[in-house]
Amino acid sequence: MADLPVETIQFDEPTLMLEPLEAAVVTAIRRQGPLSRTDLSERLDYSRASVTGIVGRMIDARVLTEAGEGKSAGGRRPFLLDLNPHLGYVVGVDVGATSLDVALADFRGQILERATGPGDVRGRPDDFFDRVADVVDELLARRGLPATAVIGIGVGVPGPVEFVPGVLIAPPLMPLWEGYPIKQHLRRRFPAARVAVDNDVNIMARGEHQAGAGRGLDNFLFVKIGTGIGCGIISHGEIYRGADGAAGDVGHICVDYNGPVCHCGNQGCLEIMAAGPAIAAEGRARAEAGESQFLAARLAERGTLTAVDVGDAAAAGDRAALEIIRRSGRMIGGVLATLVNFYNPQAVFIGGGVAGIGHGLLSAIRQATLRRATALSTRHLRIEYAPLGEDAGVIGGIWLALENVFVVK
Amino acid sequence: MADLPVETIQFDEPTLMLEPLEAAVVTAIRRQGPLSRTDLSERLDYSRASVTGIVGRMIDARVLTEAGEGKSAGGRRPFLLDLNPHLGYVVGVDVGATSLDVALADFRGQILERATGPGDVRGRPDDFFDRVADVVDELLARRGLPATAVIGIGVGVPGPVEFVPGVLIAPPLMPLWEGYPIKQHLRRRFPAARVAVDNDVNIMARGEHQAGAGRGLDNFLFVKIGTGIGCGIISHGEIYRGADGAAGDVGHICVDYNGPVCHCGNQGCLEIMAAGPAIAAEGRARAEAGESQFLAARLAERGTLTAVDVGDAAAAGDRAALEIIRRSGRMIGGVLATLVNFYNPQAVFIGGGVAGIGHGLLSAIRQATLRRATALSTRHLRIEYAPLGEDAGVIGGIWLALENVFVVK
Repeated sequence: MADLPVETIQFDEPTLMLEPLEAAVVTAIRRQGPLSRTDLSERLDYSRASVTGIVGRMIDARVLTEAGEGKSAGGRRPFLLDLNPHLGYVVGVDVGATSLDVALADFRGQILERATGPGDVRGRPDDFFDRVADVVDELLARRGLPATAVIGIGVGVPGPVEFVPGVLIAPPLMPLWEGYPIKQHLRRRFPAARVAVDNDVNIMARGEHQAGAGRGLDNFLFVKIGTGIGCGIISHGEIYRGADGAAGDVGHICVDYNGPVCHCGNQGCLEIMAAGPAIAAEGRARAEAGESQFLAARLAERGTLTAVDVGDAAAAGDRAALEIIRRSGRMIGGVLATLVNFYNPQAVFIGGGVAGIGHGLLSAIRQATLRRATALSTRHLRIEYAPLGEDAGVIGGIWLALENVFVVK
Repeated sequence: MADLPVETIQFDEPTLMLEPLEAAVVTAIRRQGPLSRTDLSERLDYSRASVTGIVGRMIDARVLTEAGEGKSAGGRRPFLLDLNPHLGYVVGVDVGATSLDVALADFRGQILERATGPGDVRGRPDDFFDRVADVVDELLARRGLPATAVIGIGVGVPGPVEFVPGVLIAPPLMPLWEGYPIKQHLRRRFPAARVAVDNDVNIMARGEHQAGAGRGLDNFLFVKIGTGIGCGIISHGEIYRGADGAAGDVGHICVDYNGPVCHCGNQGCLEIMAAGPAIAAEGRARAEAGESQFLAARLAERGTLTAVDVGDAAAAGDRAALEIIRRSGRMIGGVLATLVNFYNPQAVFIGGGVAGIGHGLLSAIRQATLRRATALSTRHLRIEYAPLGEDAGVIGGIWLALENVFVVK
């Protein structure tokens, strides 16, 4: 990779600078695929001459490449321009509470290599990110690439993030990570990379926005249901973070003032009432009370029950399991009705581990949302399982990295 | 006003076209006040030469005027540029359920003339907007201006609006107005005006954003408490409307599944439980039950009670009235806690007629919000009465008009 731009690390970050119009060219091609100079001139509303000049410079800088001929509009067939896939490589990192997903992609966002495995965020972040860097090195080695080939890294973490410095703030799952300089740590191993960090749900919403069901939508919600419940918000086509980076923290919305005490200290939070552990615990209670043969057998066999077991029971027609799932869906849908009235999104996509437990949950969520939200706010509303599934995080990480590779002057 | 630009009405609207950089100059001066060419060049990140060229053309077109000398930064004192207040005039119209406010302002947004009076939206919109036009004519006459001096009109209406066509969709208060072409009607009387229509709460949020407590904030909520309860949402510095223009419809969020039936057909909506009529009805019940001497006396005197009467009783220390107001504040605060967890705004401003009933309501709303929202989402949160009060609507209408005067190419 001797032909990669060599960056000198100055005060904080290596930078690939773009003029505003250059950045607009990159964004247009990234969103639309290959475009001709005429397409670009029309889309960006700049003269053909300005676009031709800028495109020439960007080809010289190896940001763009000629990518064959497009369709003729009567005269000569136009040359199409695409991003140079080998300008550099980016890495998406999806840190789950108990899992780690890493992918290496080219500059067009095509995944080249992937690694998935267990992870544990309760330990020291230094050790954790050393391991992340080792995994990235391994993926690079498979392609014969050096560490300096990585020009961008996008990291999703399961906790609230202050986006600009890229640090976690008061993360309940991983207190040792509070304020830990993730960017600086990764930059030590990948000195040509700009690093961006966001919370896991925002990363997944970004993945769905760029490459999943949210393509082309201006505003939607991505709700992750797993051990907890969180929500990524797309507003005006961008991730919406709120004043303190805390937007979308819907797991601690109260659904029952007299409900059980949540780890946050309040009573009756949505996630303590309706997320994966609540579904599993209720399944166990029903099994032990003799109300579900299916769950009692599964419990005897495995010694424990998960939300997925309850989903399996429901799929087999077990009544107790169906009730558990409907109850959970009703509570989630009740909160969504409130959010839909307030936010009137184009769509709500449901993802996360518990989304895998079957269609019963989705239909209960839908029913409860539609029953309690206003007619106007639901007349075009889609409520669907998120199509990228487990991949949304790592794909979102790649796109976060791609969007942060360049600094606009 | 012979020197006003003469517009020919073509297919739909008269247009004053601006290049993107010209529009950026107008926006910068509108937000910051008078600026020098050097200020503009720095703020907009364009060369001094480009800015000088464009500013010259905008002075020739009488969009900008020289506005005296600024402070020297060492050398010659720079000339400041301001918007030409006489380029044309704009009108803000705030249609309440039972009131009509109209103001005439110059091109810098300074109010020149105002009229306020009762209104009734239950009748035919034709008659209503004929009256609005008559009021505008009267204000113009006071300044000796012709109808063609009006280059922009911003209208706020109490119902859901589809913004681009500017029509009401299924407005519960005023079924006859559904789909009524407000823009076309006003344009017949003010042929040089571009007309924009938005719902009342968005208009008020815009007023607070441009000229009130929301100046410089990127995201906040404006909650109007009156006969109903609605919410204007500022996101990324702009009004957020949602997929169907229905965003902010918080009055129909459920606070009690077993509560009284709302006019929307659902049970226990926030507005049927906690808005002005609920406060007044509860005050009457307490008066009739002999639980409040103050309210019983007021009821005997006037034959009816309003939310303001209950506020007066609370201010006089009446226990029943204090309880009524705290209960209402608790319900509103409970919903706000949910919205704050979800949206993490920088501020929540409370306005509308019921906001005038005293500090007890605000402190109950604050307590309930802070008790149930997460620590992170409330650590910098301001919850305050909106400072523009009754004027927010008409001021927001003026700013809506100003922002829509030009079409950006």
